[in-house]
Amino acid sequence: MNKNEILFEKIALEVKALIDSEKIVELNRYLEELHPRDIAEILVDLEEEKRIKLFEVLPWEIGAKVLDELDSDIFSSILSKISIEHKKKILDLMSQDDMVDILSDLSEDKRQEIINLLDSELAEDIKELLVYKEDSAGGIMTTDFIALRKDITVYSAIEYLRENAPDAETIYYVYVIDKDQKLVGVISLRELIIAKPNSLIEDIMSEKVISVNVNDDQEEVAKLVSKYDFLAIPVTDINGKLRGIITVDDIIDVIQEEATEDIYKFAGTSEAESEHLEEDKFFSKVIYSVKARLPWLLITLLGGTLSATILGKYESTISQYTAVSFFMPLLTGMGGNVGTQSSTLTVRGIATGHVDMKRAFKTIFQEMSVGASVGVVCSVIICIVAYLWMGDFKLGVVVGIAMAANMLTAATIGTLVPIIFKKLGVDPAVASAPFISTTLDITGLTIYFTLTTVLLLKIS
Amino acid sequence: MNKNEILFEKIALEVKALIDSEKIVELNRYLEELHPRDIAEILVDLEEEKRIKLFEVLPWEIGAKVLDELDSDIFSSILSKISIEHKKKILDLMSQDDMVDILSDLSEDKRQEIINLLDSELAEDIKELLVYKEDSAGGIMTTDFIALRKDITVYSAIEYLRENAPDAETIYYVYVIDKDQKLVGVISLRELIIAKPNSLIEDIMSEKVISVNVNDDQEEVAKLVSKYDFLAIPVTDINGKLRGIITVDDIIDVIQEEATEDIYKFAGTSEAESEHLEEDKFFSKVIYSVKARLPWLLITLLGGTLSATILGKYESTISQYTAVSFFMPLLTGMGGNVGTQSSTLTVRGIATGHVDMKRAFKTIFQEMSVGASVGVVCSVIICIVAYLWMGDFKLGVVVGIAMAANMLTAATIGTLVPIIFKKLGVDPAVASAPFISTTLDITGLTIYFTLTTVLLLKIS
Repeated sequence: MNKNEILFEKIALEVKALIDSEKIVELNRYLEELHPRDIAEILVDLEEEKRIKLFEVLPWEIGAKVLDELDSDIFSSILSKISIEHKKKILDLMSQDDMVDILSDLSEDKRQEIINLLDSELAEDIKELLVYKEDSAGGIMTTDFIALRKDITVYSAIEYLRENAPDAETIYYVYVIDKDQKLVGVISLRELIIAKPNSLIEDIMSEKVISVNVNDDQEEVAKLVSKYDFLAIPVTDINGKLRGIITVDDIIDVIQEEATEDIYKFAGTSEAESEHLEEDKFFSKVIYSVKARLPWLLITLLGGTLSATILGKYESTISQYTAVSFFMPLLTGMGGNVGTQSSTLTVRGIATGHVDMKRAFKTIFQEMSVGASVGVVCSVIICIVAYLWMGDFKLGVVVGIAMAANMLTAATIGTLVPIIFKKLGVDPAVASAPFISTTLDITGLTIYFTLTTVLLLKIS
Repeated sequence: MNKNEILFEKIALEVKALIDSEKIVELNRYLEELHPRDIAEILVDLEEEKRIKLFEVLPWEIGAKVLDELDSDIFSSILSKISIEHKKKILDLMSQDDMVDILSDLSEDKRQEIINLLDSELAEDIKELLVYKEDSAGGIMTTDFIALRKDITVYSAIEYLRENAPDAETIYYVYVIDKDQKLVGVISLRELIIAKPNSLIEDIMSEKVISVNVNDDQEEVAKLVSKYDFLAIPVTDINGKLRGIITVDDIIDVIQEEATEDIYKFAGTSEAESEHLEEDKFFSKVIYSVKARLPWLLITLLGGTLSATILGKYESTISQYTAVSFFMPLLTGMGGNVGTQSSTLTVRGIATGHVDMKRAFKTIFQEMSVGASVGVVCSVIICIVAYLWMGDFKLGVVVGIAMAANMLTAATIGTLVPIIFKKLGVDPAVASAPFISTTLDITGLTIYFTLTTVLLLKIS
């Protein structure tokens, strides 16, 4: 544990002690000093009864911020235990985009129950946001933003911000709209602060405002924000009307989510499994994981059966020269690893933009050179080992050649497959470890047994 | 290509056309409308001569921002071609933290050459920043921040910001220091805007300021910023003095870098390989990749040799019952995939905090249940396939039992190893795909041949 984790453990213990000893006043005072995110973490770790005790002590504003951080299960268990009055107050104070996230994970009934508690304007906003797909710009945006008309002065703009800042998600970028609500410019709070008070907004705003559409994929939004170092990005509808903003903290969540998804896909399991990570129900979690992983395992099963069929053709080779079979796991293992290394680097490179489709040939050639180099090194080692161990020089040479050929093939296939998938418009991450290593088992064994049959049996 | 990429391609073509036709005035006007990040991307794609032409047309402020975005190779190639006067002006306008990043990748000579061109105050700052490790808080922070003394009024604070805002990296969080430069509080620009002009900073600032130490690891810093949704975080030295700040855009880079590192480690290659991705020299890139990947391949080689030794012990089983060997690649392939799925989920879960050490047993039990479930499904399928294909019911049963046992073992080992590594203080990512699949080849083959020898040969 690092120093922050140790400090957090200490705070969590003190909070628990205060709840147990029912020191409500001290607890309230102690909690006010904490960050809502920390309170949420402590709360999740408590038993249900204590959770409610802690939650009831929180001032409304903090309670709302704590709710923002919870997942839908704990959110609804807490709300089911507090008074309607308390619920209404606290829901109105929540952050819109977080509430939408939580509500979209609830059942239709529970969702409607919560929406009925909201004041009518907020309820409309939330209903609108719930329509968008969870991984679209609309699904992660908030409508708590500040937009200014282009024909007002800097002075009135700052006055307006003073009044409305507390409700807005961010005020560091202020978007400028025309009379039809169309996005026409942007101005940062920093520019506003240093501008002359009587200038007009339209004269100092930047018209080069980069925006996304409500239906854009969240991954594309994250790429733009990270490329241009934005703190927020505006979201418009098909008519160019400003509908919401996405702030950088939500973009960080998207980037982490997408990285986890990529890693999952790569290991041959569905990206959706990550969303069920926090689920508490043991049985449904297991069922979910089985469903997510089984497709890739069935591909491996099919590939393995194919390998078995190929080996069946070489039955006489194996029965004449049993030692040949000893090296099969070594060869498939090495091929799988080299292929996985190449495919991982290529898939990640495509995702981060480091592997450029324009320079695909360069990447392929580079990986082939790496594959050939490691192939030669490993092939010399295994040739010597096989010779010393088996005392069979010919076998050593065959295994060595097969290994080098296999590793070169593995690097080539590992790089080519994701690049071809990308060109065809298929997600390159489908070239996952199970897919690549199964393919390479088949090619590797074919190479090995062709060589064995030709070199060991026919020649001798 | 999505709409942003298509737009970008169009812009890049227009810029190239303007350079080719030497329309300097139009080019200048066109570039002024673009984001520096886009200009940098266009520039990287140009031939060297055209790069310099484009760069010389840029206004200084934009040129400096373009330099911020370049890697060290292109940075020094451009600087070597422009006049000393131009260099001096433009370097002074660069963002400190980006300059430090670039300089730390240059050779000692080239670095010194650049530092000599800087004005003395900036040169001191840069030299100080270069001392910190690249992946520490000090290595990614900037000293271009605004700090206020706690005893001034809101009015004077805003006046101070007006004057100093253009130079600072961010003004959205303003840190408050005492007379000894110690960090004592924080106030957001938003709070400053809505506060009464004659309030004192110390009365409205928050004293709960979360900071990091200059030597903290960048990954820890990223965790804090992402946990608390900060736009920036202050960096202090061992005496609590404020030394710099880290802004959220740099945190996004850290998160992406760390995710790439995790993926690389997982595929069994060094994290350092990612840093060489952009390197242009083909040969050094290949050498680097070989060095990064070879260690894992040698582990696989060792494991494979061990497998071969184990198989050697069962030579008589294989020669009596050749069909047994046909299913080896299938069994090792399935084991490797199940194990990789479990280890990937566990390693990533530990990194994101979803797999909690306190609940390690729950995770292990869950993965074992998943392993057993997929094991039973696949085992029934392969049992039927083996029976239908070979007409050998006993072989089918043995392969099926071995497969189920192997998949359960694989899920268990895949989950246990990263958890044990974490408990021992070893990076869980060492439990990479090559490591896990090699281990599982050995256990899987041992299970299979023990079963074969007992069930097929002894009983029959």
